[in-house]
Amino acid sequence: MRQIESLKFNEQGLIPAIVQDANTGEVLMLAYMNEEALRRTLSSGEAWFYSRSRKTLWHKGETSGNIIKIVSVWQDCDQDTLLLQGKPTGPVCHTGHETCFFDQLTDR
Amino acid sequence: MRQIESLKFNEQGLIPAIVQDANTGEVLMLAYMNEEALRRTLSSGEAWFYSRSRKTLWHKGETSGNIIKIVSVWQDCDQDTLLLQGKPTGPVCHTGHETCFFDQLTDR
Repeated sequence: MRQIESLKFNEQGLIPAIVQDANTGEVLMLAYMNEEALRRTLSSGEAWFYSRSRKTLWHKGETSGNIIKIVSVWQDCDQDTLLLQGKPTGPVCHTGHETCFFDQLTDR
Repeated sequence: MRQIESLKFNEQGLIPAIVQDANTGEVLMLAYMNEEALRRTLSSGEAWFYSRSRKTLWHKGETSGNIIKIVSVWQDCDQDTLLLQGKPTGPVCHTGHETCFFDQLTDR
């Protein structure tokens, strides 16, 4: 596991994390991590985030049961964004959709 | 083209935009848009962003020549993140990589 000290968390101590389905390549969601959420994700192999609305650590799937098993985690060239490739055990979106990006702006 | 008034821009007037290669599914980068960048993207069919460091609108590729032709734009369920599916005309990353996510944190 690589050092994460060089990552650039923002002024709220957060870094955006894109989640992509490791099997299909579909982009599933964007959420935010603080350092502790990232540490838990890397050590447990399941996605943890920081909920900005609830102001608390959030084990994805803790209520829905739909966790995301991590396959790989990548940082971008600026070290201020993460990409998680993982395998969700159920629909990622709270609406029941497979992805949170189900509403196209360019469809008409 | 759909109304964009319902989108939730953050306190800086920005919304994160994930860029995905429409052909390969590869996640290429994350950048930020203000409302004008989104309007220009939707009207021109090429990706525009807002540069937080330079504090200016940024036509992706204006210096490198590597523009991103837009195929579709999606909003997420919270209306606070965008997903752009597009076709880059060259490497998206300023390092010359195809994607900004070339550095794996979980590779050891």
